[in-house]
Amino acid sequence: MTNIAGSVSRLIENFRKLPGIGTKSAQRMAFFILRMEPREAEELAQAILDMKNSVRQCSVCNNLTDEDPCHFCTQPNRSDQLLCIVEESQNILPIEATHAFNGRYHVLMGTISPLRGVGPDQLAIPSLLRRLEQSQIEEIIIATNPNVEGETTAMYLSKLIKPLGIRVTRLAMGLPVGGDLEYADAVTMSKALEGRRDL
Amino acid sequence: MTNIAGSVSRLIENFRKLPGIGTKSAQRMAFFILRMEPREAEELAQAILDMKNSVRQCSVCNNLTDEDPCHFCTQPNRSDQLLCIVEESQNILPIEATHAFNGRYHVLMGTISPLRGVGPDQLAIPSLLRRLEQSQIEEIIIATNPNVEGETTAMYLSKLIKPLGIRVTRLAMGLPVGGDLEYADAVTMSKALEGRRDL
Repeated sequence: MTNIAGSVSRLIENFRKLPGIGTKSAQRMAFFILRMEPREAEELAQAILDMKNSVRQCSVCNNLTDEDPCHFCTQPNRSDQLLCIVEESQNILPIEATHAFNGRYHVLMGTISPLRGVGPDQLAIPSLLRRLEQSQIEEIIIATNPNVEGETTAMYLSKLIKPLGIRVTRLAMGLPVGGDLEYADAVTMSKALEGRRDL
Repeated sequence: MTNIAGSVSRLIENFRKLPGIGTKSAQRMAFFILRMEPREAEELAQAILDMKNSVRQCSVCNNLTDEDPCHFCTQPNRSDQLLCIVEESQNILPIEATHAFNGRYHVLMGTISPLRGVGPDQLAIPSLLRRLEQSQIEEIIIATNPNVEGETTAMYLSKLIKPLGIRVTRLAMGLPVGGDLEYADAVTMSKALEGRRDL
């Protein structure tokens, strides 16, 4: 990278650490920032610093938030009978985008992963159990990812929670809407068959 | 974006201004930075600020650089007989990547574009002509983009420079290596025919 000014290639190297950003994208971004108004570039840098300073975990659900408790935990128009368990804070976004869920959330802070040495005790399960004791939760939707680790975690949680007399459900797995049967992998296809519904 | 902490969505909005970064990419990047070490995030923010502060235009060739004149203008092992004209500073990178050019550069700072109201007088053409007077340049390679504006600019420069007795060349246009004839557009294909070479 000796062909670029040192300060530019330093920013490119920094951008390349971000997910989905390769050398070309990092270069485009850096050169774009070079042409930006200085004020705009300062705003971008400051937004990074401010976010790192102000974001913390919600003490109730572990969601990342500027205010504790987070607004999902405090919104009065959300149902206290319905709880959705997700792996990470960002998994809340696609669920909220549906506008079809109006319960509360609990962020596990990961998944059970024997390969990476993550057991149930490293996840936010004790705080989940405490929440269940104190609340009138009637259904728990487990929205961990549809992969091996997410499934393992879902099974574990299900065994833990069902004895408490709470209904435990799991997001449906099957063909993605707008997809093509031709491109469905065998596992997804078998889930789609398994979960077939009467018309 | 009320579903995300305010400081996170502010950073996402800032990232979305960058080229090639949509909402999903901006979210991934912001959430990745949330999980970063604070030190790393500060380094990223600082790299943006430092670059904006230290990068300026080379007084000889207009390349963006931390030092003036830039290292392309000062490197002793480059030929002073060969000059490559590019539109923007970042266009130097793909040329350097070939390791097939060892002359100097001149950055035009744009292209002639009647549609956007950019005429020859808004480009770094006067400084180019001054360079030509003082130097022993034998060949000028015009490496403007292979589109209408780049072609117009190349034609204009060619008419301006040829009378000075300097050889003016243009990058070849044709089929991209590794491409497929099936996907070649008609204009590229006609350029490929026009520029055909004896085997």
